[in-house]
Amino acid sequence: MKKISKKLLSILLVLVFALQNFCFVSAAEQYSGKPPKYIFMFIGDGMAWPQVQLANNYLGVMKNGKDSVKPEKMLFTTFPHAGTSTTYDNQTYITESPSAGTALATGKKTNSNIIGLSPDGSERYETIAEKLKKQLGYKIGIVSTVNINNATPAAYYAHQPSRKNYYEIAMEIPKSNFDYFAGGEFLSLNGNNNDKKNIHDVLAESGYKLARTKKELLALKKGDQKVVAISPDRAWDNVMDYEIDRTTEQKELGLSFFTKKGIELLDNDKGFFMMVEGGSIDWSGHANDAATTVHEVIGLDSAVKEAYNFYKKHPTETLIIVTGDHETGGLTLGNTMTAYTTHYELLANQKMSFTSYDKRVAQFRESNATLETVMADIKTYFGLIKKDDPDAEKNPLLVLSDDEYAAVVYAYSQAMLKSDQRTTTVKDKMMYGVYEPLTIALTKILGNKAGVAFTSLSHTGLPTAVFAVGAGADLYDGYYDNTDIAKYLFEICKVK
Amino acid sequence: MKKISKKLLSILLVLVFALQNFCFVSAAEQYSGKPPKYIFMFIGDGMAWPQVQLANNYLGVMKNGKDSVKPEKMLFTTFPHAGTSTTYDNQTYITESPSAGTALATGKKTNSNIIGLSPDGSERYETIAEKLKKQLGYKIGIVSTVNINNATPAAYYAHQPSRKNYYEIAMEIPKSNFDYFAGGEFLSLNGNNNDKKNIHDVLAESGYKLARTKKELLALKKGDQKVVAISPDRAWDNVMDYEIDRTTEQKELGLSFFTKKGIELLDNDKGFFMMVEGGSIDWSGHANDAATTVHEVIGLDSAVKEAYNFYKKHPTETLIIVTGDHETGGLTLGNTMTAYTTHYELLANQKMSFTSYDKRVAQFRESNATLETVMADIKTYFGLIKKDDPDAEKNPLLVLSDDEYAAVVYAYSQAMLKSDQRTTTVKDKMMYGVYEPLTIALTKILGNKAGVAFTSLSHTGLPTAVFAVGAGADLYDGYYDNTDIAKYLFEICKVK
Repeated sequence: MKKISKKLLSILLVLVFALQNFCFVSAAEQYSGKPPKYIFMFIGDGMAWPQVQLANNYLGVMKNGKDSVKPEKMLFTTFPHAGTSTTYDNQTYITESPSAGTALATGKKTNSNIIGLSPDGSERYETIAEKLKKQLGYKIGIVSTVNINNATPAAYYAHQPSRKNYYEIAMEIPKSNFDYFAGGEFLSLNGNNNDKKNIHDVLAESGYKLARTKKELLALKKGDQKVVAISPDRAWDNVMDYEIDRTTEQKELGLSFFTKKGIELLDNDKGFFMMVEGGSIDWSGHANDAATTVHEVIGLDSAVKEAYNFYKKHPTETLIIVTGDHETGGLTLGNTMTAYTTHYELLANQKMSFTSYDKRVAQFRESNATLETVMADIKTYFGLIKKDDPDAEKNPLLVLSDDEYAAVVYAYSQAMLKSDQRTTTVKDKMMYGVYEPLTIALTKILGNKAGVAFTSLSHTGLPTAVFAVGAGADLYDGYYDNTDIAKYLFEICKVK
Repeated sequence: MKKISKKLLSILLVLVFALQNFCFVSAAEQYSGKPPKYIFMFIGDGMAWPQVQLANNYLGVMKNGKDSVKPEKMLFTTFPHAGTSTTYDNQTYITESPSAGTALATGKKTNSNIIGLSPDGSERYETIAEKLKKQLGYKIGIVSTVNINNATPAAYYAHQPSRKNYYEIAMEIPKSNFDYFAGGEFLSLNGNNNDKKNIHDVLAESGYKLARTKKELLALKKGDQKVVAISPDRAWDNVMDYEIDRTTEQKELGLSFFTKKGIELLDNDKGFFMMVEGGSIDWSGHANDAATTVHEVIGLDSAVKEAYNFYKKHPTETLIIVTGDHETGGLTLGNTMTAYTTHYELLANQKMSFTSYDKRVAQFRESNATLETVMADIKTYFGLIKKDDPDAEKNPLLVLSDDEYAAVVYAYSQAMLKSDQRTTTVKDKMMYGVYEPLTIALTKILGNKAGVAFTSLSHTGLPTAVFAVGAGADLYDGYYDNTDIAKYLFEICKVK
């Protein structure tokens, strides 16, 4: 009996030691489990803490009433693990998407506009997707709301000295041998000088099955190998339409569809990795359009839901990570005018994205529309009204102040001119950048009234949010660098 | 042998189960260890992710060179656990310090300007400090760079329907029976109407030992019971001087001193809890003064170092938490003008805080100083120069653009008037708020040139950063509410 006790004691000691070690694991950024078979990497381009919190707050007032103070959490913000990531690149504290994507995909920093190469171009950085394909035989999916050969998706499969090498980026698809590409139409379909073989043809010849119409997309099914699925949306720049603009019919083929379809096509015994980018969050951030941004973030969450449904069926074998590559717009959740009050519900008055409204402004310019006509249109699409509007008493929060109205009138006067005839003072440039003056004036004013503000037409250096659930997810707690997001994946997957 | 194997197997199973349970612990926000004997709660008032990252980036360029891109991490940002906390209160998405302090101290939300009471005032919320005193016999320390009876420190010991009940707040000190209060001089020393017994006298009669001079403060020593230590700084508002303004002599008695002294006085066998507030981060944020903000954040980190030195001696018995109560100023790490570039090193050209420069502006107003005189002064204290300045070629980044110079000239013209004679357009109010027009114009311009910007003279709704090290620190990973910060402490300390 004494002997047994001794034995038990020694076993106990060993186990206590193991216990300590095991629990030290997460703090030491180590992972002792098996590589998860199913890995989802969601990237909100231009999405950091302000964008995430604004979406939760907006959902709160929309669900609980405008006077409520109770954020509604998007699914991914309920994940058990969350961290914060720095985003500076090799050249600047304010990263571009190519270098940010490279950091997230390869664990290495590079110059702002380089994709998957070292700063001097001499070293090819291998991506997590390439490692998983090669070392573990995983199937790989690359999905984005924007062009398949845009910077963030490219960072997972391409290696180019410039993000603008769109054609060359697409040409890396056959080499990658990845299994599923989905998103907006390719940029530079026939090369930057329009003198190359059509990307579609190259891909088809390399054995990829292209699906471009709604019918073709819906017909994609388990067993289809090597698929390139292109969104049929064509409203602007050949990318997926903004969530705020999507018709009921279009809603069927949003980012969620391409995520769900990806799961169907990629699911296999060896496992898969799928990167899904909400790429347009960045674009509406650049344009200082808060309403469109909020809807894009919520759209990304809808896509996360598809992954989460899959996770629930394979909880011990799945890892879902949701992060952003950088902040865009310098979005703040307050401003001097609204001070301690917020009216997020006002954002619901905006009925279309800045790009869609740009088209209306272009029409006004062509028809030389009067200020009166334009003001009526502004009321319809942004809810904003003049002091003497019959609805002014009913909707005081939407009444333009004298300064705001003056800003609208000035922006209107600029918008009515062709872009090469406009005033180009520093102030104008700071206010409008490359954007349609009237539209950006309106989105900024509505944002201010709602209790937010923007300080930049570019990215900013704010750290981004990271959320994770599933196998190895606890490594994503804490404060770390964007390169660590990839390094933790290498650790979790035991790839080199 | 067979019997032993079976026994071993069952023990193994039990232990594996325990292991799983133990590791589930952090995800489930549970803590199975002993309550840490020594607990430090650092609060940067107005400090959220932008302020923290800006300080790290600033330290990076100051240490590694202006062209480097390599943040230097403040000590607290190297802690192994970090999370992010929402801050909305019972009334608004943009909290005030009283409600934020109440949430952090009691785990419950209340209205914006209430301290330690329910929204209707009927319920007294018990603070973590009160619980630890009563239930575990811990000694309690309350430390702040600002007034001891200001909102955040008050939230740990007082219960008042208004933050402005400064006298009543101080009167709760004897009732609290807490052991160490340190910070700036009390507000309303003789009551809001100057008709009450001096707070110092009341405290002395209640058995508190007051230390107010440098000599008295340095003489405080282990064994002194019930101490109220008041900073001798008197430059403005009777709070501790800003870090950026501290003379070498003053440096000795900064927040670090009061933290270190607190450890010396509070250390005892039963344990202690000390709340240390960097309260002036908020004030420089309100004033949109980035340079002063950065120095205040770094000052808070210096105080954290004192706690960390103590932690290193008692690593298994100590818990250090560092967080902010809300964001102030809508600080963004970028702006339209500087776009993807940053010049954080320019902030080092600012030689004094906005409050100190306000005094110079007041002198200029009294002496009716010429613009030329003022511009020379601006060059000395902010580094900003005109296009035709002889140093313009050497320091191109500090040259005022035409628009910036026009803004300085306008602010100068306003500053030369008495405040009741100034222009009060909405634009002016938005630009200057209650601040000295010239000073805030200068801090904003310098901040913009450095690559940052502010959108608000108030707080914003951005989530704050949380860092933790020590016993129970892993509970502070993730994304949660400010009330959870207190609730986790209750869990860790097993208090009710």
